[in-house]
Amino acid sequence: MTIKNIAEYMAELGQAARSASAKMAASETALKNQALLGTASAIEEMTEELITANQADLAAGRDKGLSPAMLDRLELTPARIAGMIEGLKQVAALPDPVGNITDLDYRPSGIQIGKMRVPLGVIGIIYESRPNVTIEAASLCLKSGNAVILRGGSEAIHSNTALAKCIQSGLKASGLPESAVQVVATTDRDAVHQLITMPQYVDVIVPRGGKGLIERITNDARVPVIKHLDGNCHVFIDAEADAEKAVNIAFNAKTRRYGVCNAMETLLVDEQRASELLPVLAGRYAEKGVALRGCDKTRAIIECEAATEQDWYEEYVAPILAVKVVADMDEAIAHINKYGSHHTDAIVTENYTKARRFLREVDSSSVMVNASTAFADGFEYGLGAEIGISTDKIHARGPVGLIGLTSQKYVVLGDGQVREP
Amino acid sequence: MTIKNIAEYMAELGQAARSASAKMAASETALKNQALLGTASAIEEMTEELITANQADLAAGRDKGLSPAMLDRLELTPARIAGMIEGLKQVAALPDPVGNITDLDYRPSGIQIGKMRVPLGVIGIIYESRPNVTIEAASLCLKSGNAVILRGGSEAIHSNTALAKCIQSGLKASGLPESAVQVVATTDRDAVHQLITMPQYVDVIVPRGGKGLIERITNDARVPVIKHLDGNCHVFIDAEADAEKAVNIAFNAKTRRYGVCNAMETLLVDEQRASELLPVLAGRYAEKGVALRGCDKTRAIIECEAATEQDWYEEYVAPILAVKVVADMDEAIAHINKYGSHHTDAIVTENYTKARRFLREVDSSSVMVNASTAFADGFEYGLGAEIGISTDKIHARGPVGLIGLTSQKYVVLGDGQVREP
Repeated sequence: MTIKNIAEYMAELGQAARSASAKMAASETALKNQALLGTASAIEEMTEELITANQADLAAGRDKGLSPAMLDRLELTPARIAGMIEGLKQVAALPDPVGNITDLDYRPSGIQIGKMRVPLGVIGIIYESRPNVTIEAASLCLKSGNAVILRGGSEAIHSNTALAKCIQSGLKASGLPESAVQVVATTDRDAVHQLITMPQYVDVIVPRGGKGLIERITNDARVPVIKHLDGNCHVFIDAEADAEKAVNIAFNAKTRRYGVCNAMETLLVDEQRASELLPVLAGRYAEKGVALRGCDKTRAIIECEAATEQDWYEEYVAPILAVKVVADMDEAIAHINKYGSHHTDAIVTENYTKARRFLREVDSSSVMVNASTAFADGFEYGLGAEIGISTDKIHARGPVGLIGLTSQKYVVLGDGQVREP
Repeated sequence: MTIKNIAEYMAELGQAARSASAKMAASETALKNQALLGTASAIEEMTEELITANQADLAAGRDKGLSPAMLDRLELTPARIAGMIEGLKQVAALPDPVGNITDLDYRPSGIQIGKMRVPLGVIGIIYESRPNVTIEAASLCLKSGNAVILRGGSEAIHSNTALAKCIQSGLKASGLPESAVQVVATTDRDAVHQLITMPQYVDVIVPRGGKGLIERITNDARVPVIKHLDGNCHVFIDAEADAEKAVNIAFNAKTRRYGVCNAMETLLVDEQRASELLPVLAGRYAEKGVALRGCDKTRAIIECEAATEQDWYEEYVAPILAVKVVADMDEAIAHINKYGSHHTDAIVTENYTKARRFLREVDSSSVMVNASTAFADGFEYGLGAEIGISTDKIHARGPVGLIGLTSQKYVVLGDGQVREP
């Protein structure tokens, strides 16, 4: 689709979203679930059409010389289509957070005051060329009572347009406004700029993708951004760690999957345990082909490449691990708060007081004791699907699910009370 | 104080605040309270010095031709000094929200997961020439475990510098880092620009002041802003309102105080009750000298000036009230959501279903049934002192007290769990 005036086009999407958001905020849970299940049915019925559209994207991608990894992410395989359908059903099954009222307490004036959970309004999602994100993001925004404008990577434009039709069909069947979910129908880059600079229509932006994309968006946005920068996660093996727990957790946190944001990137070991545990761990990592980069003290115990200052900052997203021997927990906490990305960090210890201090003093969205960082995930936390893992400090930290896409307003119930002076 | 390189100076403040914030986050409640009470004692002891500094500001203000209203806000009267001391004692008496853990539930994997309340980090406060705000803001940030950089209006520079000394003295006595509270010591406007564009040192900006100031800051900031734009509050008298409650609430919401953000600015009346209630209300308002501006239907019932389209948007902050007769609750809700500022809006009704719908569908930070909008206030809500009333959608809506200056991180307690596969 060629659009002459991008600013006008985006403002139209914005107006339509704003108007739909009021209806979405007031809509019944049953209707929202009907729209989600209707979308799932539409995807089933339109599978061939989806695959044809996706083939067009893949062909264009090959012509453009996309990397095999990018082509892989772009592809809608039967398994991924089944995954989208299953995801829609799961979100329909989640409890609806909207309208929930808590803490309804009486005050001395006689008014009763509580908090009601409400949608944020209009959410803009900007993501790379992974068409399944279109359905994931749309379903979470829809269930949380928000309207959403989706801007996927340009390489996925045909797939996303076909998926948008499935969503429209689900919305239509339920009687909810079709403009509650809109996919930007142009690949013009100016559309992103417009989307992130129209606070009159968009309440919050959620970028999903590489650090570069997210930094650019955060820098240019005139709307609050819920962002996930990087996942430089740590495991600290304390002097009083249980050896078996330490080895299992340090092994799992690194090797369960390399390409995920909750993977450990730096291992910190108390110097009292380094000579006992590092050789065991080095053996385990070697079996998996994990390359180690150690500080001087580490290299005095096991053989590995030397870590540079830059390694402590690195999110490898690969079978590489930085290893540092520290004097005590204070050094570990200082290291994590300085070099880490405030994502997920764990201590392994049997010491009660140190566990308590670590939980309090490590400034990360998830802080763990005797558990693998791999648990940092919406499903494992019981939140259901997540739209991302926030490393921000305001609004939402950690996995952002339905609750993270809402906020709370105050409700006041009275019997005619007025305030004296 | 003349500072040559503002950017360098502000970066120094930022670094010092960032480093203090880690200590503040981990500090015990007792130390924070000691710092607050120590500041109160210092204000008592240094009252003469404070008044001398304030006299210098007032003299300069008079020379500059400040309006009597501005000079009034600038003045540190004995009552205001007593108010600051009392405020510090009250904040010390509030429960400490930091470290509070909720929802610590076991998951099927065996990990136990909950949320811990944590400070935001470093807060930048930008405000106009009201020196008492220095103490209010500092005390809330300190109690909530944050470090703060305060930038008050340039006309109050001597008063603020003197107050900063009192705070430093309180911090020093308690052993907390003195750079936990820093007052910007220059009136150079570039300091504001620096403060709002250094995300590496500042986590959130809270501007307090006129709409113009807040819009400028929001536009230029590279840091999240918790903002309070305007307070265009409504009372809607429904067809099924109790007449006495309706008149009392509409009268109180407008006339209790004119200069506050929770004052009603537009009264909406269902047409079924307009001819009965408007004459009664017009009489009450006339006694107080409130000037009415009505729609055509209003003017067919009572005599008043005609309201223009602009009146529906107006926050008068004065004894002026816009009055509109509406066909039903749908029109009232649509009017509030379109023209209002999402601050505080109330319905007067005896109808259960309409009360429920109004609470759900009005998109404001406080929504009330049968209570005066004048209750929208941190003390009335039981939150204690507030740093402002947020009309934002993300993070905090409504009165922002200690809780609004914190967020929640996840804590995970395990026994050696690893995640399969």
